[in-house]
Amino acid sequence: MNDRFYLSLAINEAWKYQGLTYPNPAVGCVITDKNGAILSIAAHKKCGLPHAELEAAKEALSKLNPLLVFPLEPNELYDFIGKNHDNLLKNSTFYVTLEPCSHQGLTPSCANLIVTLGAKSVIIGMTDNTDNAKGGAQILKRAGIDVKTDILVEECGELLEPFLLWQNGSFSFFKLALRLDGTYDNGIITPHEARVFMHKIRSACDLIVVGGETLRADDPLLDARLTDSKAPDALICTKKTVQKKANVFSVKDRKTIIQNSLDFPKKYRNIMVEGGNNFLCAMSSRVDRFLIFRSCDFNLNGNKKIEADLKLKLLYQGIVDNCSFGWYRKERL
Amino acid sequence: MNDRFYLSLAINEAWKYQGLTYPNPAVGCVITDKNGAILSIAAHKKCGLPHAELEAAKEALSKLNPLLVFPLEPNELYDFIGKNHDNLLKNSTFYVTLEPCSHQGLTPSCANLIVTLGAKSVIIGMTDNTDNAKGGAQILKRAGIDVKTDILVEECGELLEPFLLWQNGSFSFFKLALRLDGTYDNGIITPHEARVFMHKIRSACDLIVVGGETLRADDPLLDARLTDSKAPDALICTKKTVQKKANVFSVKDRKTIIQNSLDFPKKYRNIMVEGGNNFLCAMSSRVDRFLIFRSCDFNLNGNKKIEADLKLKLLYQGIVDNCSFGWYRKERL
Repeated sequence: MNDRFYLSLAINEAWKYQGLTYPNPAVGCVITDKNGAILSIAAHKKCGLPHAELEAAKEALSKLNPLLVFPLEPNELYDFIGKNHDNLLKNSTFYVTLEPCSHQGLTPSCANLIVTLGAKSVIIGMTDNTDNAKGGAQILKRAGIDVKTDILVEECGELLEPFLLWQNGSFSFFKLALRLDGTYDNGIITPHEARVFMHKIRSACDLIVVGGETLRADDPLLDARLTDSKAPDALICTKKTVQKKANVFSVKDRKTIIQNSLDFPKKYRNIMVEGGNNFLCAMSSRVDRFLIFRSCDFNLNGNKKIEADLKLKLLYQGIVDNCSFGWYRKERL
Repeated sequence: MNDRFYLSLAINEAWKYQGLTYPNPAVGCVITDKNGAILSIAAHKKCGLPHAELEAAKEALSKLNPLLVFPLEPNELYDFIGKNHDNLLKNSTFYVTLEPCSHQGLTPSCANLIVTLGAKSVIIGMTDNTDNAKGGAQILKRAGIDVKTDILVEECGELLEPFLLWQNGSFSFFKLALRLDGTYDNGIITPHEARVFMHKIRSACDLIVVGGETLRADDPLLDARLTDSKAPDALICTKKTVQKKANVFSVKDRKTIIQNSLDFPKKYRNIMVEGGNNFLCAMSSRVDRFLIFRSCDFNLNGNKKIEADLKLKLLYQGIVDNCSFGWYRKERL
């Protein structure tokens, strides 16, 4: 199989964690051994967990030497792998969706890790132009590693763009949950595991935004209880007064803002907007992406529907617990 | 990576051709070389084209020896590969969604082909219990090949079941095309390449069924013109008289049946049902599967919607030309 195939596996893996990785980008990595057999398909899953390259190296080494016991903490893991790789990844190939980082951030440079491991070649989906991370390809080349860059720029660019928007100010997306027939109502639309996944994404956000209509109709907590995580701050956009005993106020350790305007307060950077038809129509020109869940049922009780005019581009689709979900952006005309 | 991973790649590839392979089943095959590197990911695409194993062997050999010029006709291809494989696939592993066939059908036995090529092991998603094809695993084992069976029975079973239904009488499915908002109307919903794909599937059917309402509102040709293929026979289920100049009558070399009843005539075996809400509600208990296309737009002009009560299970989803599509069956309660 060719470079594009392995990179596609890496891209696909990374999309599963889109929205969960701030302040890091969503990155995927595939390692093949010196003979071209796939050793691991991994992604950066969350800040505080290993970068994609380190995670992929760990998974590959754990297959090649099942006796290794890896430390959990990324810095310790990095050191451990540096000392215990035993040349098992010598002459391997790394396929990464983004140029491996050159810098010491929370963890040391991934480019240096790849050099230490003795990889033969690194196939890079797209170059990293961010100031503090760029230059990884140079490190690899100077070490005599065969480097190919910009193999799937468009696909890797779509994967990276939410992070770039976040880096340049803020990233916002509208989460919508519909049935197969396009309906929704005040009840639960999606299956349990899909809601756990949504709460995971909520917990990575610093702000969740709803309209007054949702607050009055659903009285939601807007927290991340299904993953036992801290709730994001909440913004209620409404012209009317909000019921004082609304559930949203009962969530600990979070701020709730009520305002008339639809503008996101400046300090927030990873913003999830939720709602139904009216809020979608009000917000569709303000958000960067759409995350749409679609359950697998037609339901006669679905009494609400979307009445909007939007042409979207499907960037990635997955399935969780018999529920389809997709990341979309607006079509560029 | 483990057996399940490679089998999943094979399953996924095979689903792309679901509905196109009659009178053969949809089967996928992945070949890895003696070191575990993937050489090919292939599927049976259509009757008259190679079985999955033969196609995968061809694709693998074409990579290993780019000078080989393969004949197109499957029997010639089978002979050619037998004479020219040059032991390039010696000690390879074949991952197949269904036990390789033992019998001489239109092409000779795939199990014998694998023996000829000198494979080391064959990983079989599910056993073939059909009378004329079963016994492939025995052939492989007798030749000293390491055989593992029934690795992903449920997933491979979902892939195979349309064929088994067809074999036991007939297979029917309801094709629906909706927008993201669940709406549809008398205009075109899905992009061009998605419609080409639908016509390809139509051309593999022997009967296309619509209700009188579709005939009167859309006056469709119900042919497979976008793929230059023969149109299936057409069945119009209606209680009213049909306009004599309806387009459906203008299609050459096909029979059009008009009847009051919703029963499919016995002679037809691969039956595509198309329509909107009323016909879906009338037919949902009569069809075996649902093929649902969903474009990526919300449209204010979408003036029709589905009002049904159906819980489905998503079996496979793909993307064609920015249009999502999925094969579904009813949830088994």
